[in-house]
Amino acid sequence: MKKLINRPEDVVKEALQGMSAAHPDLIRVSFEPNYIVRADAPVRGKVGVLSGGGSGHEPMHGGFVGAGMLDAACPGAVFTSPTPDQMLEATKAINGGVGVLYIVKNYTGDILNFEMAADLARGEGIEVEMVITNDDVAVKDSLYTAGRRGVGVTVLAEKITGAAAEQRRALKEVAAVCRRVNANGRSMGMALTSCTVPHAGKPTFELPEDEMEIGIGIHGEPGRERVKLKSAAEITEMLATPILADLPFKAGDEVLAFVNGMGGTPLIELYIVYNELAKILAGQGIKITRNLIGSYITSLEMAGCSITLLRLDDELTRLWDAPVRAPGLRW
Amino acid sequence: MKKLINRPEDVVKEALQGMSAAHPDLIRVSFEPNYIVRADAPVRGKVGVLSGGGSGHEPMHGGFVGAGMLDAACPGAVFTSPTPDQMLEATKAINGGVGVLYIVKNYTGDILNFEMAADLARGEGIEVEMVITNDDVAVKDSLYTAGRRGVGVTVLAEKITGAAAEQRRALKEVAAVCRRVNANGRSMGMALTSCTVPHAGKPTFELPEDEMEIGIGIHGEPGRERVKLKSAAEITEMLATPILADLPFKAGDEVLAFVNGMGGTPLIELYIVYNELAKILAGQGIKITRNLIGSYITSLEMAGCSITLLRLDDELTRLWDAPVRAPGLRW
Repeated sequence: MKKLINRPEDVVKEALQGMSAAHPDLIRVSFEPNYIVRADAPVRGKVGVLSGGGSGHEPMHGGFVGAGMLDAACPGAVFTSPTPDQMLEATKAINGGVGVLYIVKNYTGDILNFEMAADLARGEGIEVEMVITNDDVAVKDSLYTAGRRGVGVTVLAEKITGAAAEQRRALKEVAAVCRRVNANGRSMGMALTSCTVPHAGKPTFELPEDEMEIGIGIHGEPGRERVKLKSAAEITEMLATPILADLPFKAGDEVLAFVNGMGGTPLIELYIVYNELAKILAGQGIKITRNLIGSYITSLEMAGCSITLLRLDDELTRLWDAPVRAPGLRW
Repeated sequence: MKKLINRPEDVVKEALQGMSAAHPDLIRVSFEPNYIVRADAPVRGKVGVLSGGGSGHEPMHGGFVGAGMLDAACPGAVFTSPTPDQMLEATKAINGGVGVLYIVKNYTGDILNFEMAADLARGEGIEVEMVITNDDVAVKDSLYTAGRRGVGVTVLAEKITGAAAEQRRALKEVAAVCRRVNANGRSMGMALTSCTVPHAGKPTFELPEDEMEIGIGIHGEPGRERVKLKSAAEITEMLATPILADLPFKAGDEVLAFVNGMGGTPLIELYIVYNELAKILAGQGIKITRNLIGSYITSLEMAGCSITLLRLDDELTRLWDAPVRAPGLRW
């Protein structure tokens, strides 16, 4: 296992220490229980937006904490749900008096724990709403999921929802915006290589040198099929076609096109995929009005990419364009 | 070779097409010869800042073109210098009438070609200055270099120099700022894995599963030594110690600490390295007043990292903090 780490059991703690040391202007990090809140939390009169999940997907979610996006993130162990006590403490730390929204990727463990945290928070008088993202068209049910997995749209939902909360909208309205993002977004990913969970010390799966996995999950869980390695044009088509057919996206739609790296794929390849995606969408009369290209929801050092398309309207576009400042986004 | 590409010979062209499609608000891309200029080039009365080099180091340099940083970037083939005709055309495209500065990493091919381009541009009446970065303390001479290689400080120099040019300073002053950044910056890198040049189709070098290379160059050229894999704490120490001793950095210095990923290393590991670096510097009484953590000067999909320290003063800090908007930096 080749990683820039010390002891596997210290990976999450030390990465959080690094974030804490690097970004005191943007965030505060608490340890045991582990959570990150924006530096000025709680913001009175503002809905708090909280997300979380297993670590190993950086910069999601901790890198998205900051003005204009998340108020808090709860990082679990690598690929492991955070616990209700983390979530409860983070909820209290960002409670501005008008409720807290949980954005939860659809994984069984995450949902159980977030539901428990919501109950505990309500017991302490904090209003909580929860929105589940489930944008991955690759599989209906999966290793860790009843229903579709929550993947790339989560990044976009956190940005747009954070902007809505920043406008001091009410909890139910902020939750409605988040649900609208999820309803209008679809994703699919692929892997060229496996990743290695530090505790495990060996690759999660084996993928021969001439094969790739289409429809992979962000924890290395199986996708739709293993096939021979193909060109970027063919791979992009294999991801875009099921995404486009599912919503469905139609000629005349305006979309945000998000080409995401899985952690070990360099930017030069993501631009090649974006180039293919732009051609496919142009061919169908779908207009890309916003885009995001980079590694934002990752699977440790996995090589591969995912594509997310989000159908935009004027309101979602304005919220996307609103100012944001968070460690995972800034220069 | 597992890459998200089509034909190896089309990698650079198609990545540029992707950038062109994605960022028309920020940049314009020209093909044959290939170069990228900021969308509003030329800016009258402003020194143009131009850089370039082989492709495969993205987002450097093309991702740094935009208001507040580079006016132009010339991408060569992967790990191959751009040609003088590219540089000349880019120079003319950004000529605002008060001269153009070339920022050149110290590699023999790049320097020869940039010098030729400078002569050609001067022949057309454009004043040109050239600053060479050579911040890599790992080796004195190298496979492609007489003297030290130019690496991570180039990223910082392009940002700070771009800010100085934006203030409408004269060419000689802008060049002086750039030289000051180079003089006050030192870097060193390491690799856990090789990268694979698309044309070559196989890894540039072989590195056993339990070894790493210390002092690696950004083209996979050899470093100081191959040693058994060590912990992040030990690796950070092995990089920081020669950097600190070289300038030398001293107690009381204020520095920008830049932890850079080589392309295939995920952010979670870079924060662990940053955490170690912060401890080392604190132990020596050196204060980190700015930082940058992410993959900005890469070597395709190589796993590994580099550390750059830049001694700051008030002026360099102000220029670092100045606004910038470029495709490789923005959300």
